[in-house]
Amino acid sequence: MKKTLVELAALLNGTATEAAGIEITGITNIDDAGSGDITFAVPPHIEKAGKCGAAAVIIPDTTQSFPKPAIRVANPRMAFTTLLSLFTPKPDVSPGVHPAAVVSASAKLGANVAVMAHVVVDDNAVIGDNTILYPHTYIGRHAIVGSDTLIYPNVTIRENCQVGNRVIIQSGAVIGSDGFGFVTVGGKHQKVPQVGNVIIEDDVEIGANTCLDRATTGSTIVKQGTKIDNLVHLAHNVVVGENCFFVAQTGIAGSAKIGNNVTFAGQSGSAGHLTIGDNCVFAARSAPINDTPANSFCAGFPARPHREWLRSEAAVGRLPELIKKVRELEQRLAEVEK
Amino acid sequence: MKKTLVELAALLNGTATEAAGIEITGITNIDDAGSGDITFAVPPHIEKAGKCGAAAVIIPDTTQSFPKPAIRVANPRMAFTTLLSLFTPKPDVSPGVHPAAVVSASAKLGANVAVMAHVVVDDNAVIGDNTILYPHTYIGRHAIVGSDTLIYPNVTIRENCQVGNRVIIQSGAVIGSDGFGFVTVGGKHQKVPQVGNVIIEDDVEIGANTCLDRATTGSTIVKQGTKIDNLVHLAHNVVVGENCFFVAQTGIAGSAKIGNNVTFAGQSGSAGHLTIGDNCVFAARSAPINDTPANSFCAGFPARPHREWLRSEAAVGRLPELIKKVRELEQRLAEVEK
Amino acid sequence: MKKTLVELAALLNGTATEAAGIEITGITNIDDAGSGDITFAVPPHIEKAGKCGAAAVIIPDTTQSFPKPAIRVANPRMAFTTLLSLFTPKPDVSPGVHPAAVVSASAKLGANVAVMAHVVVDDNAVIGDNTILYPHTYIGRHAIVGSDTLIYPNVTIRENCQVGNRVIIQSGAVIGSDGFGFVTVGGKHQKVPQVGNVIIEDDVEIGANTCLDRATTGSTIVKQGTKIDNLVHLAHNVVVGENCFFVAQTGIAGSAKIGNNVTFAGQSGSAGHLTIGDNCVFAARSAPINDTPANSFCAGFPARPHREWLRSEAAVGRLPELIKKVRELEQRLAEVEK
Repeated sequence: MKKTLVELAALLNGTATEAAGIEITGITNIDDAGSGDITFAVPPHIEKAGKCGAAAVIIPDTTQSFPKPAIRVANPRMAFTTLLSLFTPKPDVSPGVHPAAVVSASAKLGANVAVMAHVVVDDNAVIGDNTILYPHTYIGRHAIVGSDTLIYPNVTIRENCQVGNRVIIQSGAVIGSDGFGFVTVGGKHQKVPQVGNVIIEDDVEIGANTCLDRATTGSTIVKQGTKIDNLVHLAHNVVVGENCFFVAQTGIAGSAKIGNNVTFAGQSGSAGHLTIGDNCVFAARSAPINDTPANSFCAGFPARPHREWLRSEAAVGRLPELIKKVRELEQRLAEVEK
Repeated sequence: MKKTLVELAALLNGTATEAAGIEITGITNIDDAGSGDITFAVPPHIEKAGKCGAAAVIIPDTTQSFPKPAIRVANPRMAFTTLLSLFTPKPDVSPGVHPAAVVSASAKLGANVAVMAHVVVDDNAVIGDNTILYPHTYIGRHAIVGSDTLIYPNVTIRENCQVGNRVIIQSGAVIGSDGFGFVTVGGKHQKVPQVGNVIIEDDVEIGANTCLDRATTGSTIVKQGTKIDNLVHLAHNVVVGENCFFVAQTGIAGSAKIGNNVTFAGQSGSAGHLTIGDNCVFAARSAPINDTPANSFCAGFPARPHREWLRSEAAVGRLPELIKKVRELEQRLAEVEK
Repeated sequence: MKKTLVELAALLNGTATEAAGIEITGITNIDDAGSGDITFAVPPHIEKAGKCGAAAVIIPDTTQSFPKPAIRVANPRMAFTTLLSLFTPKPDVSPGVHPAAVVSASAKLGANVAVMAHVVVDDNAVIGDNTILYPHTYIGRHAIVGSDTLIYPNVTIRENCQVGNRVIIQSGAVIGSDGFGFVTVGGKHQKVPQVGNVIIEDDVEIGANTCLDRATTGSTIVKQGTKIDNLVHLAHNVVVGENCFFVAQTGIAGSAKIGNNVTFAGQSGSAGHLTIGDNCVFAARSAPINDTPANSFCAGFPARPHREWLRSEAAVGRLPELIKKVRELEQRLAEVEK
């Protein structure tokens, strides 16, 4: 994909400010944008965008001066969304069942489904319209996969699990592995049957080699619009709200209930059986061990309010100096006491 | 599976205390039990069980009053184990080799083995009776898998590795990947050949996308009854005792020797070449860097006795206040010195 | 492989010091060496090697007394490298395309390539000479894999990615999964197209279930000679220099630029958009959140110089005692003030 700034401006009903002939080859957010990329900005990010690495920026038509090539439009967010679709390549896969795929006679495939080589769709599984199953993917018995969903190679979706529409599952992800449940009787760990499932709602993305355990009974649930990165672990009976982010290598223990719009940054985690309110943000490597009210911004382990964490981190840095000072005080006091 | 309380009581030779008609649909431990589930309790957990979310509890027949529906039996643990078997669904897989599986002519399959579509069983591999291999599983040359073992889709078992009886391996697990061994000569890292194997004893469970590296020489060993969760890493030459727990995302570095009944909680770890005694418990996110005597309960990084960790965590929380107090003392002392 | 000490000495043009008949069955580094293994040592490691678990040690011919069986040679490193090749088993795989593999008519296979059962090589992919693809591996459209490369079972290499010569990729690794990039518009996370690729240069090793995300645009790059362990995450647009080590469960956030000869020890990480200089070492579980100059040795989170980390860790350990002392000082001062 390659478009000049003026071509994009025409497409967006906007105005290219300058350098109309420069070529745009990619699209991304302000922080990641490099030469060739277009991004967008609205207040209060206009100034930052003016200094970013992007080739051009979509800005509000009310913005006065701007130091970079830009396209002025009425609604930069909406324009950006339009360009996202434009720059997103359509999957280059023809519909149809590859002769080396194995699809059970009792499975139901929608219209225009692509089942690539060496896929297995087991008994009574249901696959929605336009969905693409890449090679070496296993769809278990009675599993249901929605429409317009994209499942990359080597994915496992175990029996009875449900995957929504427009879901993307990256390679190696495991949906519906057994929860880690045991009861220890006489020193031996006896397996608790894990007979629930996983429900993934619409517009969710699941990262590479991420594991979502099935519920002991009932369902492990990921609600619509939530995006999960690579190597994340969600244990049995976790319920995740809408539009959350789980960044790479995060792990959520069993039965945690996570609200909407929550972010767990990289390598973070959560103890089990907690309730995390809407809009919480957990910094990288933090992990709550208690219920956390909505709108909290936490860091550290055990997670505490970010400001408090900063204060105690700073205090720890000053600790060697404090020890020295206390020793001096002691000597001066001894002197006075004499 | 759905049984009334009175049906279960009859099966257990016990007495349903009340509400004999309520329906039980699942079974799990006290902490995870919800409506529909049955659990069990013995002293000192009777009171906790009385307040838990379970529909009913199996209790000793010596227990007097109990606030929830219950079944009184002579031995609650044994009764619970009986119900576990009852509630565990039998795998719904017919024995036989699927025509789309590839089994080497030199491989040996026991009686009633199920080799599902797109499995590969390589030369001289041996599979025991009643074992089930789900699709896209690879069993390497000279690998040995025991009887009544369940291997879910997309698992890799590399050459010469050994897996015991009644083992469960979740999807995406890798058994026998090369250990991470290099010798740096002239700034280049040269690979040390990893020619050992992995031995997994009976009744072990291995989680989804967990990796067990083969030994450099000799064996990486997981002894009987140990249960390993998702995304765990055991490096080359690690030896793990019996009946341990490794919770999700734990990583054990090379050549660590772990005793029996040890628990590593979620996101914990261990340095290499350590010896960890029997019955140790490492809290979530902790990691020992020294040998640890039996029966230790540790937290933090580097791991230290849990009580000590609590004390220093509390002290850190009070540190900003301490800094303030020292400043005051200094001023008061200066005043006195004048 | 089994050789007597005197046979190895002859092969290395060296002298076996004693016990010429002892049998050597493996080869590894000083720390990991056990009975049956040979290792090597040069100053200042000679004394340590004399006490290590190896059966024998390759030492410089200038070394006087040595307490263990040894082979004296002019250049121990070079001799060790010779033995590494000797002890490394050749892969036991015949070239050719298995009839149950699916190779696109437009793919190009070099000489002596082994494509094992149930591999998929997609359209226009290119595979170099002598490369081995184990079962259930997927090579995406327009992907390029070099010569003498070894790809174990269940690996995914997505479209347009490039893998060099003599690369080893362990089972379950995912090369070229989508980067985790979203722009939030009206509370919904919209996917940023990830149209870049991953480039893995020569002599790299990638661990089991490790994930390397493709770049948003451009390339995520791992330069030659770098070795990556299991369950590691490299996010989109990360660039890693030559001859680095990434030990298990490390995670590097997006667009970080890592120099040459850098080590990230187990369970460490890095924030995104950082620049890490050559020869840096990050201790286990540490993670930098700022640019780090070359030759730094860091620990802790946020990562700081190792010496500083040690000092503050020690200080935290003394904190409960410090709190007590300040309380005493306060009382004594109050006494004086009276």
